[in-house]
Amino acid sequence: MAAIKIHGSPISTATQRVLACLYEKEIEFEFINVNMSEGEHKKEPLISLNPFGQVPALEHGDIKLFESRAITQYLAEENTSKGTELLCPSVKAAVLVWKEVEAHKFEQPASTLNWEIIYKPLFGMTTDPAAVEANETKLAQVLDVYESRLAQSKYLACGCFTLVDLHHLPNLQLLLGTQCKKLIDARPHVSAWAADITARPAWAKVVALQKK
Amino acid sequence: MAAIKIHGSPISTATQRVLACLYEKEIEFEFINVNMSEGEHKKEPLISLNPFGQVPALEHGDIKLFESRAITQYLAEENTSKGTELLCPSVKAAVLVWKEVEAHKFEQPASTLNWEIIYKPLFGMTTDPAAVEANETKLAQVLDVYESRLAQSKYLACGCFTLVDLHHLPNLQLLLGTQCKKLIDARPHVSAWAADITARPAWAKVVALQKK
Repeated sequence: MAAIKIHGSPISTATQRVLACLYEKEIEFEFINVNMSEGEHKKEPLISLNPFGQVPALEHGDIKLFESRAITQYLAEENTSKGTELLCPSVKAAVLVWKEVEAHKFEQPASTLNWEIIYKPLFGMTTDPAAVEANETKLAQVLDVYESRLAQSKYLACGCFTLVDLHHLPNLQLLLGTQCKKLIDARPHVSAWAADITARPAWAKVVALQKK
Repeated sequence: MAAIKIHGSPISTATQRVLACLYEKEIEFEFINVNMSEGEHKKEPLISLNPFGQVPALEHGDIKLFESRAITQYLAEENTSKGTELLCPSVKAAVLVWKEVEAHKFEQPASTLNWEIIYKPLFGMTTDPAAVEANETKLAQVLDVYESRLAQSKYLACGCFTLVDLHHLPNLQLLLGTQCKKLIDARPHVSAWAADITARPAWAKVVALQKK
């Protein structure tokens, strides 16, 4: 079959999620950089791959996908014999549940905090302290649930690193560079989990790409 | 295997998503009503089934799940020979992608509009016109993409009704009872799709439960 092509940007958290999966699965791919500051994500060829004009997008012969979590699921299902397992079929229900928790509970406060604290100042905008406070409260409530969960199992779905943990990496890495690190440090099991998953060699490769 | 138990409320959109799936798959189940006005979702037994204290939750012998989209995926995967197919394995990539589109593009503006226009007045709160306007703009952009997509295929993932379409039903049904119906009516393929999926007999059963 044709090689896998990834259209994306190393500074996009959604692209990073897909790159982390590719490195964990040891899948070869061609990376096509989309220069977002030039607006390339709103032009061809990307707009034909993702009608919402966002990165990343995947091409694999005639198969085309967008939405980072759809791409990671596709890559994990199509490459079960390669690299890290990531799906743990024996605990399928737990993987399904905790993937949704990342998407519907963690993502929103985490990405809002990163936007307010990191990106707004980069773009010359002013951080909204009320938004930071409200989302720190929301994130703390999510991390309280994670602390209980991680006291029972090493990773969120089970004893193995899965797509669930991987999907957290881009936003978690950014949070660790902000004042929100205190919310992670205050919870020993969350703190140990964050240290463990951000130290994975596959993730180190994604972080290194951002510094190029 | 043990019977399936669903803890939920017929007025919760997330519960409705799961009920629609159960009726489409023709799966027998026991419904345990969680009285949210009495705060039962924050007490036992629900809080042990979902640490976030929200409905719905599923029990199937020793297997326990929460998060509505995790439950529908579990039910569809475990019951491939029953009722409506819902997964269409031949177009797996498209189902993965468009499920994420519902979750990350449609859900937020749709549920915010329903909150502002329907629920806030019910709770004696005041609708915020700026939030309505901003989310109508966001929803219109999503529906523009849907209009193009549905000009190519009868349903969002493919020619068959799948979990993708089903996941839209609860918020879509509410939107059709608000001023936002104009956004659907203005787009002929979206309008035909909305009429088709809200007319399904399985969905009629879910709507009937709300009137009991």
